[in-house]
Amino acid sequence: MTDLFRIGSFEVTNRLFVGTGKYANYELMQQALDASGCQVVTVAVRRDRLIDAQGRRLTDFLDLNRYVILPNTAGCFTAEDAIRVSLLGRELLEKAGNKGAGWVKLEVLGDKKTLMPDPVGTLEATRELVKEGFTVLAYSSDDPRAAVRIKEAGAASVMPAGSPIGSGQGVLNPLNISLCLELLKEGDPTYPVIVDAGVGAASDVAVAMELGADGVLLNTAIAHAKDPVKMAAAMRHALEAGRLGYQAGRIPKKRYATASSPFEGVISYIPGE
Amino acid sequence: MTDLFRIGSFEVTNRLFVGTGKYANYELMQQALDASGCQVVTVAVRRDRLIDAQGRRLTDFLDLNRYVILPNTAGCFTAEDAIRVSLLGRELLEKAGNKGAGWVKLEVLGDKKTLMPDPVGTLEATRELVKEGFTVLAYSSDDPRAAVRIKEAGAASVMPAGSPIGSGQGVLNPLNISLCLELLKEGDPTYPVIVDAGVGAASDVAVAMELGADGVLLNTAIAHAKDPVKMAAAMRHALEAGRLGYQAGRIPKKRYATASSPFEGVISYIPGE
Amino acid sequence: MTDLFRIGSFEVTNRLFVGTGKYANYELMQQALDASGCQVVTVAVRRDRLIDAQGRRLTDFLDLNRYVILPNTAGCFTAEDAIRVSLLGRELLEKAGNKGAGWVKLEVLGDKKTLMPDPVGTLEATRELVKEGFTVLAYSSDDPRAAVRIKEAGAASVMPAGSPIGSGQGVLNPLNISLCLELLKEGDPTYPVIVDAGVGAASDVAVAMELGADGVLLNTAIAHAKDPVKMAAAMRHALEAGRLGYQAGRIPKKRYATASSPFEGVISYIPGE
Amino acid sequence: MTDLFRIGSFEVTNRLFVGTGKYANYELMQQALDASGCQVVTVAVRRDRLIDAQGRRLTDFLDLNRYVILPNTAGCFTAEDAIRVSLLGRELLEKAGNKGAGWVKLEVLGDKKTLMPDPVGTLEATRELVKEGFTVLAYSSDDPRAAVRIKEAGAASVMPAGSPIGSGQGVLNPLNISLCLELLKEGDPTYPVIVDAGVGAASDVAVAMELGADGVLLNTAIAHAKDPVKMAAAMRHALEAGRLGYQAGRIPKKRYATASSPFEGVISYIPGE
Repeated sequence: MTDLFRIGSFEVTNRLFVGTGKYANYELMQQALDASGCQVVTVAVRRDRLIDAQGRRLTDFLDLNRYVILPNTAGCFTAEDAIRVSLLGRELLEKAGNKGAGWVKLEVLGDKKTLMPDPVGTLEATRELVKEGFTVLAYSSDDPRAAVRIKEAGAASVMPAGSPIGSGQGVLNPLNISLCLELLKEGDPTYPVIVDAGVGAASDVAVAMELGADGVLLNTAIAHAKDPVKMAAAMRHALEAGRLGYQAGRIPKKRYATASSPFEGVISYIPGE
Repeated sequence: MTDLFRIGSFEVTNRLFVGTGKYANYELMQQALDASGCQVVTVAVRRDRLIDAQGRRLTDFLDLNRYVILPNTAGCFTAEDAIRVSLLGRELLEKAGNKGAGWVKLEVLGDKKTLMPDPVGTLEATRELVKEGFTVLAYSSDDPRAAVRIKEAGAASVMPAGSPIGSGQGVLNPLNISLCLELLKEGDPTYPVIVDAGVGAASDVAVAMELGADGVLLNTAIAHAKDPVKMAAAMRHALEAGRLGYQAGRIPKKRYATASSPFEGVISYIPGE
Repeated sequence: MTDLFRIGSFEVTNRLFVGTGKYANYELMQQALDASGCQVVTVAVRRDRLIDAQGRRLTDFLDLNRYVILPNTAGCFTAEDAIRVSLLGRELLEKAGNKGAGWVKLEVLGDKKTLMPDPVGTLEATRELVKEGFTVLAYSSDDPRAAVRIKEAGAASVMPAGSPIGSGQGVLNPLNISLCLELLKEGDPTYPVIVDAGVGAASDVAVAMELGADGVLLNTAIAHAKDPVKMAAAMRHALEAGRLGYQAGRIPKKRYATASSPFEGVISYIPGE
Repeated sequence: MTDLFRIGSFEVTNRLFVGTGKYANYELMQQALDASGCQVVTVAVRRDRLIDAQGRRLTDFLDLNRYVILPNTAGCFTAEDAIRVSLLGRELLEKAGNKGAGWVKLEVLGDKKTLMPDPVGTLEATRELVKEGFTVLAYSSDDPRAAVRIKEAGAASVMPAGSPIGSGQGVLNPLNISLCLELLKEGDPTYPVIVDAGVGAASDVAVAMELGADGVLLNTAIAHAKDPVKMAAAMRHALEAGRLGYQAGRIPKKRYATASSPFEGVISYIPGE
């Protein structure tokens, strides 16, 4: 039973989006990607142009027949730079014949310390990249009205941050993620919203999905775990747990669970079960 | 690769313990238990003596060759009552030939409103049941020193509550659960600790396991979900996610993830990946 | 010992900014403002143009010699509307001879449901109002990079929301408020940052001030409390508590407080003091 | 307008109880106690028997006409030890003619690392000290049923911990403190409950009081603050803020505060006020 969703013309069959940076080596990355069960893999275009100590290039280690590459503009701090890098990424993926040439994960970062997105540059770049024909997935803060503006600028998906990139703090403000979902999906329930950034533990992925997110993107939580391959498997299960839990409809929270009817004589209620 | 643990002489191969109360009907319970992947199923001895509207009895719907029954003393508010119910449960399971005759999940509840455990009655009943030869798994508050006292009284496992039974509030005080684990496992790392009560969502299970719990017991979160069978599957994945995540070693939380070395010229660091 | 701060050319001697809407009647408002100890009172320009059932007008009940009025643009959903209302407010306060004619609390709201600020309209209106000579205090989300953009647009103060207006949820994301403070005050430590919106309880005010905010603005938490005058007094104390606490330098959080040196023989350490 | 409460025969006029340990010197302690506005000062009996480097004794620096001393049994890990220390404290205070001879803050600690209370030893010592005629204020975990047992054993007040002594983590589980209050005051609304231990910031004091606690006891948060005297003043205001806020009746928390009636035409509602 496939549980797919659409981002523009892309049909996504697995809701965990995994990054490719920060691994100790490419082999470990390969194993972690495999264990994560992901279909979409995001690659910093800037990184792909780099080679490691042995002269090896990242994309040589990615099975382009298996994964859809989502090029990202990590390392860009202006709209101009992000646009340039997006075009470069498209060119590279077109040459490689990978479907990922058609989309981009847009990051226009505000500063090198927090790595939080610049709302103005993000809007500018989104508009321009949409004009250039890209399916834009835009990294955003968890500000619900900023998310709406990005959607209005033409983004095919908004990707609100749970907490700062690489911080491992999880979803710091569940209300804001929930309001992003409410506003972005109002009258447009299939509009895809992917929580991006901040995941530290598997439970963070479950929390994001239980709020109703369509997917989760993460990198550091796997790449810098003590055992990245095992953590990738944890994330795969957490995604599934959160998605199923969202669909299954959780019980409400109560102060305590006293039966409203008195205990005595009520045959079907055993207090403490 | 089995990931078993021991509680007294019991070898547990699946870390999710699932209750059998509060289901709309026994067939739904059967399907949910199946979807949960659990090995151990807990049954209120008081409930098993009840019959439903069609004159059917709970244990007739449990495959006693598949599941190990963990009888529990739900509905008991004194040590005496809990001891009596424990003995009755043992008798029933011995007749049924189920391995669960040797152990009991002890609940001595303090009141019908909060359903929180009475620390004094719990200690008394633990001591007595240990004398009677039971492997005692004792439901407890999350008070770390109370947990130590229960272990000292002979309990084979302490089961601290995340939050009140049926409240769906999850793990309200992760520090206390973590201190229970630290104190109970000090010099005795295989002593089993199972988080019991309070689970509302799948992420709550993952959180408990990431703290280092050996297992999680739950009932209402599945039985009262809109779709209990789907929620049972969510819980199965969440258990796996939390367990793997704990073993994999999560990244530390940071205010933000700025590279310590400056960005410029550092070939391996792309900010925002 | 005065603990003043500056917003543009305004010298503020009390850090609690209090609203004037939502009171049962004007007399109650007067008493609550008095009990709050506030110097600055914010008034929706739109409200001041309204009269109540007895034909009475809000500003007739404000001692303009005692309070500095901070006109606000509540009820505005576009930059144009907010600019128009700001100009109107200035005109009214100039006529009244109140110092508040020189500044404005800018609200450009995104929608009538969440009442969260529209980041684009807020930037536009800020730029225009600065040109018009206003000292602009801009209501913002808690997105740190959005806050920086608003400062760059010329705002004399940014006012990040703790949580949605009137929601009473307090400071939902202390990290974001803390990052707003860090980024806005970087190289400019006296730049004033006022937490606006979301306060429900007095402790919320203390939390905001302990994070390092220069002030807090609130309305509903007082006006809709069961006893608004008593709650106003609570807020006055909470402001003081949070400000003093921030200045005094709190102890760090620890898992537990075990002395590093062993207990025995250490004369100055009594465990549990 | 005095806001007193009773603990046994003691009439308490100020709800902040302040400790006397861990100060850099006695003079600083004197100033901090003064700034805190407290009436009741707690002293470890073990400490009072110690002298500092200059041969000075703690109680020589406490104005026994101004403060009521609450002797405490810090440093005791068994009921026997706590009883012995209590008797010694009574003797010392009787000699000094201080009213505090009649009561004791009972600490029976479980271990030197967490400094959490031992529930069994606490019950034993409470029973014995009540027999000896003491008004017992018993330090407890935040376990609501443990608190009830301590009350039943005769304690005049239960003092649940917000978090471990000296940890500065504040009230980690507001539900449990709230349930302690609910169960202990059921049918006995004036039974005094004082939150003890864990305070780090002034806002923590406000939170405890807003939950309905009758008072707060703290030590490290003042003594180890960078500026203890200023922090003591912060705590005084926080106590007042929390108490007034509790009495004033806070607004409920809402997802957002949308008016139920539509905006247009509703003269008294300005969205965003």
